[in-house]
Amino acid sequence: MNNIVLYMSMSLDGFISGPQDGPGRGFGIGGERLHDWLSPGGVDPGSHRPTSGPGTVVFDEAMATGAVITGRRTFDFAGRWDGDHHDGVPIFVLTHSAPDEPAPGHATYVTDGIEACVAKAKAAAGDRDILLHGASVAQACLRAGLLDEMELQLVPVLLGQGRRLFEDLPPDHHELELVRSLEGADALYLRYRVRSKGPEGSKRSEST
Amino acid sequence: MNNIVLYMSMSLDGFISGPQDGPGRGFGIGGERLHDWLSPGGVDPGSHRPTSGPGTVVFDEAMATGAVITGRRTFDFAGRWDGDHHDGVPIFVLTHSAPDEPAPGHATYVTDGIEACVAKAKAAAGDRDILLHGASVAQACLRAGLLDEMELQLVPVLLGQGRRLFEDLPPDHHELELVRSLEGADALYLRYRVRSKGPEGSKRSEST
Repeated sequence: MNNIVLYMSMSLDGFISGPQDGPGRGFGIGGERLHDWLSPGGVDPGSHRPTSGPGTVVFDEAMATGAVITGRRTFDFAGRWDGDHHDGVPIFVLTHSAPDEPAPGHATYVTDGIEACVAKAKAAAGDRDILLHGASVAQACLRAGLLDEMELQLVPVLLGQGRRLFEDLPPDHHELELVRSLEGADALYLRYRVRSKGPEGSKRSEST
Repeated sequence: MNNIVLYMSMSLDGFISGPQDGPGRGFGIGGERLHDWLSPGGVDPGSHRPTSGPGTVVFDEAMATGAVITGRRTFDFAGRWDGDHHDGVPIFVLTHSAPDEPAPGHATYVTDGIEACVAKAKAAAGDRDILLHGASVAQACLRAGLLDEMELQLVPVLLGQGRRLFEDLPPDHHELELVRSLEGADALYLRYRVRSKGPEGSKRSEST
């Protein structure tokens, strides 16, 4: 059974980008800091492979996934990866409405919700895991109870402000299990398995 | 030189208590989950010592500190520790205005700001570290550049909502160094040293 695995770099105070100083939807002010564990690289995501340390393990696992799920914000900011995130695996881009121009390369816009997006990605990935990337799809997956694992690069910095990974979620408890912790110079690589929603969360959900 | 060390239990999504369901200022709904690494104990803080695992190390270090800094919210919620947090060390309670009744036992209200509070605690603690506890004093210390270390119990749960440890901070980058990571069944014990404010943060501070 393949897993939906969220891959994200997050500051200790929970941000995945710095505060925006314009209409851009990029790293935000100082947000590049969160990606110091990666090599500078170029347009090709594969070119960002770290040169050493546990980041290489995490990176290689990400690049071994069989499909990608992301949101429009992340997709557009990343230059749509020129239609190929890695090895030509299908990319499913969750969006409210697809633009007129078709998605490039191996990408497909999905407009009928996160459940459909996940179903398509799971079917396409075969026995390989699915790489989930971006705060909006992460939150959508959590809300729908569809997230299996999280591989977080916890970066030793406080950004103070920016865009949070975990935001605007309902008060549902998700019990996690830390299944791997790798300590690198630039980040702590934490892999969590999503175990359950706790009784408090369920109780709240039923009453609202 | 003694250090100001923040001790807090935090969910992976950054909360130190669950959402409040009334005027209370306690753990919030489901927030007790964050303290599963401690023994149930009683009124005496010392009675919460974990029975085994790396939590015992962290707990013993906390109980070896020479002074306590906290805020009114935390102090009142904790029943003012009956005036004695541990071993009769002085407790400095940061507050905007002291109540009419004097602080019990070894506690003192400090109304002239975090800098004064830290100075008093450092002087009182001798060569021992100072235990800082509570979100408001943590944020005040970070804003003032007075925080030396953080000992966070990162709990494998998402609460979804609640009170955040890092909130309403200016966009100042604080570079951290992970100086210790201990993996326990109930939490990941992370000790960070506060290294610096990054150039992005400083730049923003100067322009605002």
